[in-house]
Amino acid sequence: MLGAVPSVASLPTSLRDALRAGADLELAAVDTRSTPGIGGKAEAAAARGGIAERLDELQERLFAEGTRSLLLILQGMDTSGKGGTIRHVVTALNPAWVDVAAFKKPTDEELAHHFLWRIERRLPGPGGVTVFDRSHYEDVLVVRVHGLVPPEALPTRYDEIDAFERRLTEAGTTVVKCMLHISRSEQKERLLARLDDPTKHWKFREGDIDERARWDAYQEAYADAIRRCSTDVAPWYVVPADRKWYRNWAIAQLLLETLEDMDPRYPPSTLDVPRLRKRLADER
Amino acid sequence: MLGAVPSVASLPTSLRDALRAGADLELAAVDTRSTPGIGGKAEAAAARGGIAERLDELQERLFAEGTRSLLLILQGMDTSGKGGTIRHVVTALNPAWVDVAAFKKPTDEELAHHFLWRIERRLPGPGGVTVFDRSHYEDVLVVRVHGLVPPEALPTRYDEIDAFERRLTEAGTTVVKCMLHISRSEQKERLLARLDDPTKHWKFREGDIDERARWDAYQEAYADAIRRCSTDVAPWYVVPADRKWYRNWAIAQLLLETLEDMDPRYPPSTLDVPRLRKRLADER
Repeated sequence: MLGAVPSVASLPTSLRDALRAGADLELAAVDTRSTPGIGGKAEAAAARGGIAERLDELQERLFAEGTRSLLLILQGMDTSGKGGTIRHVVTALNPAWVDVAAFKKPTDEELAHHFLWRIERRLPGPGGVTVFDRSHYEDVLVVRVHGLVPPEALPTRYDEIDAFERRLTEAGTTVVKCMLHISRSEQKERLLARLDDPTKHWKFREGDIDERARWDAYQEAYADAIRRCSTDVAPWYVVPADRKWYRNWAIAQLLLETLEDMDPRYPPSTLDVPRLRKRLADER
Repeated sequence: MLGAVPSVASLPTSLRDALRAGADLELAAVDTRSTPGIGGKAEAAAARGGIAERLDELQERLFAEGTRSLLLILQGMDTSGKGGTIRHVVTALNPAWVDVAAFKKPTDEELAHHFLWRIERRLPGPGGVTVFDRSHYEDVLVVRVHGLVPPEALPTRYDEIDAFERRLTEAGTTVVKCMLHISRSEQKERLLARLDDPTKHWKFREGDIDERARWDAYQEAYADAIRRCSTDVAPWYVVPADRKWYRNWAIAQLLLETLEDMDPRYPPSTLDVPRLRKRLADER
């Protein structure tokens, strides 16, 4: 079956409602150290096992149902925790049915195509869950901050993204978009921590420091993109991410609420169990 | 750097040595309920956290090193636990750098190509780990049992597989091939258990019962393929798999020994840490 009617109302509290961004988003007004929806670190730790167990079951149902899919988009400044989220949250899912796609600087081939071309190729198949580490939003973020597209091209891109995501959702893919929102000073601490730890040097790029000079321009680009592309069918969630434990809990909880809402079902069984059992019993 | 000299000698015991299959393999002589290399279920449970932690670190090093890769091939009869292994072992790894490829009945497009064509497209990239749920070995197993290739074509296929795997290993991919070895009666129990559990009906196919009539032919095909294609560069391991806890421990341990042997290293740091630290400190 294709899913029961979603019943958000049945959830006692909804983190999705709390974190959903609207057309009135003011990023600077979102406290990056806040922890909406949960009492504290201990409460998040206590909830972890239960969330993982329910995610596991719901994901199996989604795969068994085999018609719909889930796309989790992670965006955020360098060091905001996209990789950490994948390490700590996505491991709750069955790796057989998860694909993680990291979108880096486009290749020559990718640049020669429309910006959605490389995205299209990594969409989830029926029953699958795909996680985007960066996404098509880079084409209205870094590209805008670095002036790689003229400002007058942005409205068209937003429209194209809206139309693209609408098509995805109409075809059965639920899209969850999360901005991991950290403060400029938190990023500085994390960059310094990477310098302190030789096992983290391999992921340090001096360009990350250069980009900090453009912090405000990035925040503006994020805010515009989120305001413009947070739609009913594909909402944006702004996740306070200075606290890693909160970020991990929040994304897991957002995934859980989304999957509960999708309410995937095992397909109806068509097995003639007594006959099959007899076949096995009657074997030599 | 491209890895230090492997030091198998430094391992107190090697499960790889215990489970490696040679040209003299007699599958029927391998007790599917045996548990070589570990005292029992409690000991395996106690080892689990430590193995997962070391796998995590070694995998990060492999990715950071960025030159080599790991390919885990899982083969086995229906219900032998390929999916369970992925669920319970592969989750120890960072999903960002793992790809799971399930090879099912070939599509028309795949059939129109050489049998290695679809395999080639799913090989790990530099630093990556890929898990094959079934593999190119299906083309000397199910295809042989069902007479889809003439017997005289098999030696050529074995040679092609050997040459293919040799090329992979020479290009930096370590290949670990595991046969999950269950007994015919254990399979019967597992099929009955699936019939008992309505949430498992979606993965039950009556064809699985039909195939049991060909059990001996499959065992012969497996034994021949393993004897013929267990090479120094890409050995086969026969993993007793009637006990799920043993199977999970053994595959995790085989992965661990393999990664320890590969000994991936973080690339040498080229960062001028004091200067970078000063840049961050001097910011407005």
